[in-house]
Amino acid sequence: MARSENIPAPAVRRLSLYLRQLEVFHAGDRRTVSSRQLGEALSLSDAQVRKDLAYFGQFGCPGIGYRVPELIQRLRRILGTDKKSSALLVGLGNLGRALVSYRGFTKQGFEIVAVFDNDTAKVGRNVSTTGATVRRSIPVHPMTEMPTVVQALGIRLGILTVPGADAQGVAEQMVEAGIRGILNFAPVTLQVDGEVAVSSVDLAVHLEQLSFQLTGLTT
Amino acid sequence: MARSENIPAPAVRRLSLYLRQLEVFHAGDRRTVSSRQLGEALSLSDAQVRKDLAYFGQFGCPGIGYRVPELIQRLRRILGTDKKSSALLVGLGNLGRALVSYRGFTKQGFEIVAVFDNDTAKVGRNVSTTGATVRRSIPVHPMTEMPTVVQALGIRLGILTVPGADAQGVAEQMVEAGIRGILNFAPVTLQVDGEVAVSSVDLAVHLEQLSFQLTGLTT
Repeated sequence: MARSENIPAPAVRRLSLYLRQLEVFHAGDRRTVSSRQLGEALSLSDAQVRKDLAYFGQFGCPGIGYRVPELIQRLRRILGTDKKSSALLVGLGNLGRALVSYRGFTKQGFEIVAVFDNDTAKVGRNVSTTGATVRRSIPVHPMTEMPTVVQALGIRLGILTVPGADAQGVAEQMVEAGIRGILNFAPVTLQVDGEVAVSSVDLAVHLEQLSFQLTGLTT
Repeated sequence: MARSENIPAPAVRRLSLYLRQLEVFHAGDRRTVSSRQLGEALSLSDAQVRKDLAYFGQFGCPGIGYRVPELIQRLRRILGTDKKSSALLVGLGNLGRALVSYRGFTKQGFEIVAVFDNDTAKVGRNVSTTGATVRRSIPVHPMTEMPTVVQALGIRLGILTVPGADAQGVAEQMVEAGIRGILNFAPVTLQVDGEVAVSSVDLAVHLEQLSFQLTGLTT
């Protein structure tokens, strides 16, 4: 066991990769896996796998390896995705709407419970969200209600899908309202308080990187 | 000028960040920017900015800095996003459907021109896609038609949104059909020919990393 701040970020990132791969093994009805097998599936060495997991405790049995369902459970607990978390989403544009109905969030234990937008034409309406089992309808709030809603529902995670030019200002409003983790889809680098965790998904960057590799050489 | 294979991948990734930030400056009607100002907005040093850009040629003027619209144009040309590229999408589930109508792809010059799925209930139907200006309707093809369609339309880029357990097999089919770059949304590490570029967007990993930071300490 180690305090999370002493664990290298790449090791935490690989924890997610291990979990993904273990879920694939589990779906294929595999009961046990060795560090070598887990590493091979991810192009990592067995030593790397063992070293990463050692940050988080004792896992596996000599000669047997890791029990797949047990390791999945423990990794989920370490990552905090073994319980449900409430999230809000700001910016009900094309991508925001898509993410509200994206089942992948629910599968990972994240539920979007409130949506915010500054467009008065959208505020006050309802939007359909796909829960684990049922389709629910949640209201679109004006930005001014964010602090109240965040406090009332105990929300700590926010998904940011506003245009790039608005993102920094909206991120500050989210932090002000009490949000402690931001999943940022806006194509900008957010500058926030060091206490707030930010993870950015920039689809444009991914596309450009692929495009560059397809282009092959610079001009 | 340098051959792309001699340019460090982090420099190419930062090129995308520079482009994003320049687009924000441009939207704010800014005409010129110095390497220090560009770096500051992204928490990078001015030396880093100059070094990265130097891989790709001569930019900017002493005492003036970079002309924003000109640098945007040149970066887009380097990244190959100054012209339109056709892309296909495989896996018309919840996320696939969202991405087909996501305007961000079109904005970056990528147009989804064909969709594939192995579900016979979806094949043969049409799906709406959001082009730059008009909403278009494109057909959902069976997987078997991929080589023919890829060749007929000259597609080199594929977006993969199938379940994790199917992803590796489908990626191999895509490469076989002639796809040379894969934007992977499936939560697995793909093993493909070294000639094929893969960029992975794993929303679950992003969420878990945020969750871990919110949890604060391991147990």
